[in-house]
Amino acid sequence: MTEADVRPAYPPELRTLLDGRWRRVRELAREHLRGERFRPVAGLGAEEHRERVFEQLKEIAATDMSAYGFATEYGGEDDVGASVVAFESLVCDLSLMVKVGVQWGLFGGAIQALGTDRHHAAYLPRVISLELPGCFAMTETGHGSDVQRLRTRAAYDPATEEFVVTTPDDAARKDYIGNAARDGRMAVVFAQLATPGGEHGVHALLVPIRDADGSPMPGVRIADCGPKAGLNGVDNGRLWFDSVRVPREALLNRYGDVAPDGTYSSPIDSDNRRFFTMLGTLVRGRISVAGGAGGATKAALAIAVKYAGVRRQFDRPGTGEEVVLLDYRAHQRRLLPALARTYALHFAQEELVTALHERHSGEGERTRDERGQRELEARAAGIKALATWHATRTIQTCREACGGAGYLQENRLPQLKADTDVFTTFEGDNTVLLQLVAKGLLTDYRQEFGDLDPLGMARFAAGQFLGAVIERTAARSLIERLVSAAPGRGDTSDLYDRGWQLGLFEDREKHVLDGLARRLRRAGSSGADAFEVFNEAQDHVLAAARAHMERVVLEAFVAAIDRCGDAEARDLLDRVCDLFVLSAVEEDRAWFLEHERLTATRAKSVTQEVNRLCARLRPHAEALVDAFGMPDEWLAAPIALGAEERRRQGRGAAPGR
Amino acid sequence: MTEADVRPAYPPELRTLLDGRWRRVRELAREHLRGERFRPVAGLGAEEHRERVFEQLKEIAATDMSAYGFATEYGGEDDVGASVVAFESLVCDLSLMVKVGVQWGLFGGAIQALGTDRHHAAYLPRVISLELPGCFAMTETGHGSDVQRLRTRAAYDPATEEFVVTTPDDAARKDYIGNAARDGRMAVVFAQLATPGGEHGVHALLVPIRDADGSPMPGVRIADCGPKAGLNGVDNGRLWFDSVRVPREALLNRYGDVAPDGTYSSPIDSDNRRFFTMLGTLVRGRISVAGGAGGATKAALAIAVKYAGVRRQFDRPGTGEEVVLLDYRAHQRRLLPALARTYALHFAQEELVTALHERHSGEGERTRDERGQRELEARAAGIKALATWHATRTIQTCREACGGAGYLQENRLPQLKADTDVFTTFEGDNTVLLQLVAKGLLTDYRQEFGDLDPLGMARFAAGQFLGAVIERTAARSLIERLVSAAPGRGDTSDLYDRGWQLGLFEDREKHVLDGLARRLRRAGSSGADAFEVFNEAQDHVLAAARAHMERVVLEAFVAAIDRCGDAEARDLLDRVCDLFVLSAVEEDRAWFLEHERLTATRAKSVTQEVNRLCARLRPHAEALVDAFGMPDEWLAAPIALGAEERRRQGRGAAPGR
Repeated sequence: MTEADVRPAYPPELRTLLDGRWRRVRELAREHLRGERFRPVAGLGAEEHRERVFEQLKEIAATDMSAYGFATEYGGEDDVGASVVAFESLVCDLSLMVKVGVQWGLFGGAIQALGTDRHHAAYLPRVISLELPGCFAMTETGHGSDVQRLRTRAAYDPATEEFVVTTPDDAARKDYIGNAARDGRMAVVFAQLATPGGEHGVHALLVPIRDADGSPMPGVRIADCGPKAGLNGVDNGRLWFDSVRVPREALLNRYGDVAPDGTYSSPIDSDNRRFFTMLGTLVRGRISVAGGAGGATKAALAIAVKYAGVRRQFDRPGTGEEVVLLDYRAHQRRLLPALARTYALHFAQEELVTALHERHSGEGERTRDERGQRELEARAAGIKALATWHATRTIQTCREACGGAGYLQENRLPQLKADTDVFTTFEGDNTVLLQLVAKGLLTDYRQEFGDLDPLGMARFAAGQFLGAVIERTAARSLIERLVSAAPGRGDTSDLYDRGWQLGLFEDREKHVLDGLARRLRRAGSSGADAFEVFNEAQDHVLAAARAHMERVVLEAFVAAIDRCGDAEARDLLDRVCDLFVLSAVEEDRAWFLEHERLTATRAKSVTQEVNRLCARLRPHAEALVDAFGMPDEWLAAPIALGAEERRRQGRGAAPGR
Repeated sequence: MTEADVRPAYPPELRTLLDGRWRRVRELAREHLRGERFRPVAGLGAEEHRERVFEQLKEIAATDMSAYGFATEYGGEDDVGASVVAFESLVCDLSLMVKVGVQWGLFGGAIQALGTDRHHAAYLPRVISLELPGCFAMTETGHGSDVQRLRTRAAYDPATEEFVVTTPDDAARKDYIGNAARDGRMAVVFAQLATPGGEHGVHALLVPIRDADGSPMPGVRIADCGPKAGLNGVDNGRLWFDSVRVPREALLNRYGDVAPDGTYSSPIDSDNRRFFTMLGTLVRGRISVAGGAGGATKAALAIAVKYAGVRRQFDRPGTGEEVVLLDYRAHQRRLLPALARTYALHFAQEELVTALHERHSGEGERTRDERGQRELEARAAGIKALATWHATRTIQTCREACGGAGYLQENRLPQLKADTDVFTTFEGDNTVLLQLVAKGLLTDYRQEFGDLDPLGMARFAAGQFLGAVIERTAARSLIERLVSAAPGRGDTSDLYDRGWQLGLFEDREKHVLDGLARRLRRAGSSGADAFEVFNEAQDHVLAAARAHMERVVLEAFVAAIDRCGDAEARDLLDRVCDLFVLSAVEEDRAWFLEHERLTATRAKSVTQEVNRLCARLRPHAEALVDAFGMPDEWLAAPIALGAEERRRQGRGAAPGR
């Protein structure tokens, strides 16, 4: 009997629940992304890799995947949720994932969200078909996080009815721009808009960057960013504009327009508010990155867990058998809490995608609900930060857990690690994003979001904050019921009581947030320097955002379990959720101890229960990664696909023979 | 006035102290490893990279560096400490570092340590000169950590007076062997030795693997491990032996020999003890890896700190100036505690190298002191684990702290990260090594070290342990004095009192270790399954090793400060040491709270003091990384060498123009 025979399979309902609302999209991806064309490959040179990814991109363009996110009248499918889920399924090569995101998410998405009919009709069909490969040229070398201060200029010349696009110096060059170094023909360029009447802040324009032959357009200079840690199948580049003229109609004019005579108009009066409204329409990018991080994390865990289930090392005394790695407590502790958190984040992501999708579908009416939009943006920022840091940490752990085999490219972990490493940075640096989350909580979204600038927070918070309000993000009534049924604080209640767990996370969030608001208000009212006030509290700010997001993630997990119709799957998920909660509590138990939410005795029993849960879930570990539904072709790693067993049985294929 | 003008330079004494006993070696490395030949380069193909590294290796062979570690009678310099320090200086390309380690540390080192005069005279001069490039073929695919169970066989044939070396199956192939895929001509092969009289455990033999033309020798099969996460300038390969015959004299026979008639003899009776004695002579490899991790960590911190000192993002309200990254508290918290720990580990490493060097120099007399040798091995294991995990974590943090720029290969962080990633695995998996440390503490080194097998620990610990004994590793009398002068526990003593800090670390170590011993004894005496007992306690075992090692590291730091003759440098180091201690306490404060070593109030003030120390050290951050004495040519990263300032001033060199 082999290990495979005794391994418990996962309850089918578990896979159904994980696949969720866009199951159809996931199934299509599993069917389509296979064969020689999509096989993960290692050790390609940069040019070869770019070529391969561009060929893959063409294949994707021939499927529904490229159309999901666009309006039906231009050949799209008007299914934003599907576009995000499809993106996260591209784990066979994360360079392809990012390239898809650049072409159809960022470039196409910006045209759709910031442009008007004239742009949609003219470009979207060619964007979808990949006839027009494009770039999203926002980031500049000098301004990555602080987009509002970028310095590329687009000055309107009424004499010719053109914009003149200029890069004033090297700090203002566009940098890290995907599709720029090789394939892009056009770019959505973010620039400070100027008319004879004045400055109007950041707007986006369509600027052709290469002609039909692929040569740079006059006045456009393009350089290659050169080799990166990973994602070398993506042609990131730099762009400089030397008085490049584009027609007046090149302005993506949904939120601001310039008349032929140079008169500026906008449906939104405040420059600041307009800027954040424009940025807000691009929230899908962040949600996609969070999903992509999840996809990569699942693949890494599947590889490491499968290997740990067959790899043996050191004798078990008295048996003559060597011990399977996953039977070691230290190994369980490395992999299983990370697996539990991956489940939790998966359900939080599913909820976020649904929220995005529903907001998008109800466009017209709902987008006027500014508060709801700000909430979505804050949640996207928070999940993006949590999911990408979790990916970095977990894939690193998986690499180490696979030892020397994990260091070989053929086993995929190096590439997954290197490719996802920048996820914590792009689409918003995580540290900046968490500050955005905290600011949203402090201002309760009633205040216009104002400066992305985290310093603005100190100025804000003083007056506005009325005390932390816990707003349920999922399964409101269920969670209310669980929380109110929970026994009180103290040593007596059951660590496994879901209501107690929810209450604990909620209480931490309230306490951290109330403390932060008091601190900022006190400092703010004493006339202290706004920067100093903010800066002194910065670690408190980040802690508040984390506490909030962990509560949101837990609620999503609880809501998902509630949706599950199968008793066996529910039972398994309940244990996974317990492990998520208790390992999170363990990690932050210093806080709970300092704030007398846990006694020392109880904190120690949290650690014991984490150990116990690891042992209890160990027999289900492989089923839990199998339920992600990653085809073997995506994992590709020989160590996860039988090489270790074959070697142990002396049947290993002998490479090099 | 530019930033450079106001930046405080480091006190010269600081650099002298850091350079330490082998200053001469560091200075030589700084002078020698420069110019086009040693310039860090990015984006090479694997073959090109290997070629470049091999050419560099030839240049190194022409210097003293290749000779440091060998006996003078064979052309060496008999300076083991110098060989380790030279290794850690090779940060210009970590592939070169590892290749140097393979040739002169592992291959040459094994011939020297395990061979006798006949091997030394015949091979060492050609090893030093690189005429004979070689491999250290220990690890097998099936047995990485559990070396004692490797399965390559060397059976003696008295008829021909030869050993027949055989790879029984693919699990026993030699794997990840540096120098094997391309350059190696000979290998030190570890194999189970068999004579007609019986089995004698693992021994090492010299086996030619390629002829003068570079073709594999008859019966030797060689395969390339293929692309890895990093270190692609090192030609790691796999080796299979199909009844390869080598003469009787090929056995490295210092610890075990076979007479022409097949009679086995050894100065050490026990197979087990012989095995660990043989392994023990290779301790230098682990110490070198710890040093190499330190070198890479310093380079990464130098890059990230210098960039953080000039990079600006977001306005400081009311000033029109953007804030320098290193002025943000969150940024200080990311980099400065890591910098403080890097200092601490540096001094612990210096002490470890000195201990190795002195033991080696006093050979003959001292190597019979088995207890001292076991202590050295345990300390090497512990420092290797701490230093390499610290490297992984810190280089990752540095990459993120540099944002998109940190993801570009030209800024070196990606390569430093990818190259060092396997340091936590090779020369002993860190988790296994920490178990070795704990076992040494429990058995108080009086017991023969026995199985490397961590399970052995459970069987051992029950009877032997008499209570944790804190043995000072450095500056004994000074530390005793500080500890005994410290005020008692409780809220009143000064967090900055060095004696209190030392006492806190010491107390934690004693408590964790005593608790572990009690737990194992209790379980052991109840007749429970040895594996279960060990496994249930595994996280406790790892915690004990960590607590011990942090105390050892702190003592080394305190001893180094005591050696410092300059008041200004001492003062600065005192603050760095405080930050190391308090950030370590903060990180583990849950333990201190759970065990009532800190009250909640005091734990919170530890966090506040970490913040305060970060702010206080911030103006010295660049001086502290400059004092490492990394030449600009080694850092190489444009972001650390003025590119950012030039861009801000609009004078950036324009790539691609």
